[in-house]
Amino acid sequence: MTRIEDVARLAGVSTATVSRALRGLPTVSETTRSRVLLAAEQLDYSASPSASRLAGGKTGTVAVIVPRITPWFVGAVVEAAEEVLHRAGYELLLYNIGGREHARHRLLHRANLPKRVDAVMLVATPMGADDLATIASLALPGVTVSSGTVVPGWPSIRIDDRAAGRTATEHLLGLGHRRIACIWGDPADEYAHPAHLERRRGYQEALNALGMLPEPRLSVENRADAEGGRLATEELLSRGDPPTAIFASCDEMAMGAVNALRTAGVRVPQEVSVVGIDNHDLAGAFGLSTVAQPAAEQGQLAAGTLLGPLAGRSRTDGELTPVILPTWLVARDSTGPPRED
Amino acid sequence: MTRIEDVARLAGVSTATVSRALRGLPTVSETTRSRVLLAAEQLDYSASPSASRLAGGKTGTVAVIVPRITPWFVGAVVEAAEEVLHRAGYELLLYNIGGREHARHRLLHRANLPKRVDAVMLVATPMGADDLATIASLALPGVTVSSGTVVPGWPSIRIDDRAAGRTATEHLLGLGHRRIACIWGDPADEYAHPAHLERRRGYQEALNALGMLPEPRLSVENRADAEGGRLATEELLSRGDPPTAIFASCDEMAMGAVNALRTAGVRVPQEVSVVGIDNHDLAGAFGLSTVAQPAAEQGQLAAGTLLGPLAGRSRTDGELTPVILPTWLVARDSTGPPRED
Repeated sequence: MTRIEDVARLAGVSTATVSRALRGLPTVSETTRSRVLLAAEQLDYSASPSASRLAGGKTGTVAVIVPRITPWFVGAVVEAAEEVLHRAGYELLLYNIGGREHARHRLLHRANLPKRVDAVMLVATPMGADDLATIASLALPGVTVSSGTVVPGWPSIRIDDRAAGRTATEHLLGLGHRRIACIWGDPADEYAHPAHLERRRGYQEALNALGMLPEPRLSVENRADAEGGRLATEELLSRGDPPTAIFASCDEMAMGAVNALRTAGVRVPQEVSVVGIDNHDLAGAFGLSTVAQPAAEQGQLAAGTLLGPLAGRSRTDGELTPVILPTWLVARDSTGPPRED
Repeated sequence: MTRIEDVARLAGVSTATVSRALRGLPTVSETTRSRVLLAAEQLDYSASPSASRLAGGKTGTVAVIVPRITPWFVGAVVEAAEEVLHRAGYELLLYNIGGREHARHRLLHRANLPKRVDAVMLVATPMGADDLATIASLALPGVTVSSGTVVPGWPSIRIDDRAAGRTATEHLLGLGHRRIACIWGDPADEYAHPAHLERRRGYQEALNALGMLPEPRLSVENRADAEGGRLATEELLSRGDPPTAIFASCDEMAMGAVNALRTAGVRVPQEVSVVGIDNHDLAGAFGLSTVAQPAAEQGQLAAGTLLGPLAGRSRTDGELTPVILPTWLVARDSTGPPRED
């Protein structure tokens, strides 16, 4: 059986670095991590699952709680987290609880998580005050990814959603647009979440910075998916006097917006520009301009940050500082200068 | 606590029907199942997790093995299966093993599945002969969904991939196309799988039925995602004398094809039509013509078919007959009559 020393030798690093790299800790450079992962792959090395469970009757398992697994962001985070956890010898229990009160109740009150898992990862899942109290009473280590709520004692990994909304809107302003609509995920919908509210605040801030006020009739909320984006855009168009650009609070909504515009015979971007947030896997194929966020990296970091406490180490205060990953503009074909009215 | 009798009363059905509906069995009509799910939701009812684990030290857990969780089909199947399993009181352990020999090896040889889970679901994950022997030696009940390999004693749920390929190609033939290219997922790529090979056979059969032979230079394989579809289409265009239509073996590839065509200044569908297979969540927003497959239904059925053996009941021979779900054409804007050459 391959030992950690073999991986270290092949990768040309210390065993401590192998351990840190496989645990996804941020103190390892991406170049080094790639070299270690490649060596581990070649030698078919992984931390022993049984070793992970020796101390104190641990389960060797992490619960990953998501609203749904199908939205792009959630799938990308879970896929990346899963690889880090499995490499470290942990299993992953998946819970989709979005939109189903039943599922949420079962998970928090009847699934007996402390007996089943050693830690919890909340992905894009905001919690109300009652649920937060329940989560805290489980006394498990955990981490949140883009969840909009802070669980005491858990680190959080996210992007600066407000800054992402500002960047998207500033891109449109920079192209010369002044009548800019905002379509965004209804925060009362469990599939959306507070991130959408923050992104909309970023839109408002970018307008305010130029002395402009967002027009209420140019703001429409709907479901945070392609269908919601389509409906929101149809609503916008039905109000007359359409904007020259639309900021959508996620790429799925932006794609739905482009679809609604094309169906209505409105050319994108000649008549209306559209920008989203995410850099969805299909954004390139769609030609969608967007503000990219690193989803896989959020999953890797979140998994890595769980592995210290799982190994019995206490968290330092520094680890509880929110980790905020950068976002960046990716301009494609769906945005351009405004039409001449 | 809500009892099954309460759900039956509210839904206006027998307790046996509630049980069958929550277990996802195909003997319940979709109307009835919806009514039962609604009643269960309103009353916050689920089968007791502990009850599921009383008999014979069972784990109350099902392993779901996928190549990756991010492709549309895989996410949709897992999301639907997860709901049925959780309703029935089971947990779901997720394993992404695609493209990582290490992960596959760990799962089959070191994860000690028989101690961890009561059953296994393989989604879009073909297995080689060695792996099949290992899976069989686990002596666990299981089910395969669109996996291209048959595990002895396990039911299989899938579509008729060859018929889907025929339907897509016949749609193009019916519009008048005769120079039809095929881009398809490399079956040597673990993210693709034999389904793509079958869909390509359907393309060939549809041409043969009109006395035509597929031209080798109009067939290109690449990765089964948007990037693979883009690269395959660029390769097609670089060969000169382009086709008037492209059949792509999945929607992600088809979206990449549309992107490559638009980037090259080729109008879709005026100059080249594109059709895929799936009816991806974003196919509507993309205006993509496709042959739809019911992904969520495959996940529900697969989960349902596990619940009998999990409850200790032996499978009847009838349950081992492959379940083949229907596919159907959804014509949108990416297909039209051929250009006049």
